[in-house]
Amino acid sequence: MQVKIKDVAKHAGVSVTTVSRVLNGERYVKDDLKAKVNDAIQELGYAPSQIARSLVRNKTNLIGVIVPDLTSSFYSTILSSIEDMASANDYNLLVCNISENIDKELKYLNVFQEMRVEGIIIMHEKINEEIRHLIHKINIPVIFSSVKPLDQSFASVIVDDYQASYDATKYLIELGHETIGFIGGDLQDITSGQNRYSGYRNAMADNGKTLVDEHIRFGDYKVRSGYLHMKELLSIERPPTAVFAVSDDMALGAMNCIRDHQLRVPEDISVMGFDGSLLTELVRPTLTSMEQPIQEMGRATMDVLLKQISGKKIPTGDVVLEHRLVIRESCQPRI
Amino acid sequence: MQVKIKDVAKHAGVSVTTVSRVLNGERYVKDDLKAKVNDAIQELGYAPSQIARSLVRNKTNLIGVIVPDLTSSFYSTILSSIEDMASANDYNLLVCNISENIDKELKYLNVFQEMRVEGIIIMHEKINEEIRHLIHKINIPVIFSSVKPLDQSFASVIVDDYQASYDATKYLIELGHETIGFIGGDLQDITSGQNRYSGYRNAMADNGKTLVDEHIRFGDYKVRSGYLHMKELLSIERPPTAVFAVSDDMALGAMNCIRDHQLRVPEDISVMGFDGSLLTELVRPTLTSMEQPIQEMGRATMDVLLKQISGKKIPTGDVVLEHRLVIRESCQPRI
Repeated sequence: MQVKIKDVAKHAGVSVTTVSRVLNGERYVKDDLKAKVNDAIQELGYAPSQIARSLVRNKTNLIGVIVPDLTSSFYSTILSSIEDMASANDYNLLVCNISENIDKELKYLNVFQEMRVEGIIIMHEKINEEIRHLIHKINIPVIFSSVKPLDQSFASVIVDDYQASYDATKYLIELGHETIGFIGGDLQDITSGQNRYSGYRNAMADNGKTLVDEHIRFGDYKVRSGYLHMKELLSIERPPTAVFAVSDDMALGAMNCIRDHQLRVPEDISVMGFDGSLLTELVRPTLTSMEQPIQEMGRATMDVLLKQISGKKIPTGDVVLEHRLVIRESCQPRI
Repeated sequence: MQVKIKDVAKHAGVSVTTVSRVLNGERYVKDDLKAKVNDAIQELGYAPSQIARSLVRNKTNLIGVIVPDLTSSFYSTILSSIEDMASANDYNLLVCNISENIDKELKYLNVFQEMRVEGIIIMHEKINEEIRHLIHKINIPVIFSSVKPLDQSFASVIVDDYQASYDATKYLIELGHETIGFIGGDLQDITSGQNRYSGYRNAMADNGKTLVDEHIRFGDYKVRSGYLHMKELLSIERPPTAVFAVSDDMALGAMNCIRDHQLRVPEDISVMGFDGSLLTELVRPTLTSMEQPIQEMGRATMDVLLKQISGKKIPTGDVVLEHRLVIRESCQPRI
């Protein structure tokens, strides 16, 4: 049987109101009553209901998190880092996996509102008009993590996608590659799609490399899509000698495709990824990648959100973290 | 500004009590009043507070989930499947990542109680006395997913670990391997540790193979541990020609170690995994593995828990799902 507040009152020989005042930490409760109540709580193993306290204090200690794909190593690592910091600050996470299901996302945003979450973290940027409208309407602090939606009024924690992509492409150019294939993301996504594509294009142009239409493809960031686009790149008469995929998952798909075609990475084709997910170290050859500081991204996301929740003035604009090229085995100089 | 129940009442021209009765779906509210209230709710965009309704109905629609490691592909895939089924049944998940931190687990179990979660899912089996006691005390339906703790009073959704391990070992024996290395789990874990080890031992003995002490090692299920134990196996004078690791992560670590020592999988050493995680298809060579039906495990976990929550009589004992050997590239007949 669940111990109730009236059981505590009876056991302590005081009124329910007194117990409630002790639980809510109100002043002007006599010390001996306080002691009696606390003893009764201990002895009965009473746990005050968080939901009852939420009503009184208007604090739920809940944060809603919308993850596009829990099975992706990139997102699950950010989530793990967010969870660590939430827990350290006594916040609990309501986790939702939406797998590109807009209806599920709408439903969850409504649930977040009903549950009175104090803040919302969103890890994808494909925000349609209905969702954009809903987020503004529910008026709860929102932060986008690792992505930046088109609506500039939302805060994001991101890397400089344009520059990161520029630097990745430039590294391959410096290795002597003349033809560099590109497996990009959806151009509807401002961050990962458009900015990474522009970075690639401009790095090529600035270094006098010709952009070849058939070397440029757009996937969905997942392993399978990297595999299929690499297959197309291998089917053209003179495939590029290096390929830059804008997610580690797509880069891994590309590496697997190259290997399944009896070619070698990096001897025949160099492959560069983007993200710095755990996969980079788990595969062979290990994957050279333009890394986002994933752990730090999770921490920074919670940091900004907690400031928003506490009503602190936060610096306007986005938090932009440093990207970093990590050289491993999958790229080599063109011979 | 958050729209409150009294705003709805004012807008509809009715009392707060009437709005509340409509919200709680009580009978005997006149149709025209009902219509007025519903119109006001629509027009003002009022979202009833889930926490207020929870108090009335004693239903929170919350399930607490304790995950040992969110960044592991095995756990994040089960979690993803649990989340799908929870969402379809209008339940929301409070997700906690404990990374072997007992204090964090204790704290979360208390939070679950305070939040009045309706059920708890736990995905690890290292339950110490304090935690065991707490779980019994808080008296909320609990199910263990993919693991089985020593305390037989808890329900689990699992595979037959003994038989699965026996079958995996037997397959390697049938491929002609005389010496089969074993990278097991912690023997403190009844399911994955003890039962998988017994399965290996008995399959070897039943088929007249000698158990060699230095071929038998115990890791922690993670990639790095598989790598380090494989390194030890390679350092002995005549390493085994096949290795069975009781998690795909450890098997991948073993494969990477073999490759880093300029040996080939499966030509020099065959490697067999356990779990059927996404990794099996992502790595090269693809990993032969004794698979647990991960998606089904998530669904079955929620299925049993929802039955427990609704107070339905559930079959006593564990739900045991079928294991399945999936042959890929990492094992070959001994030459």
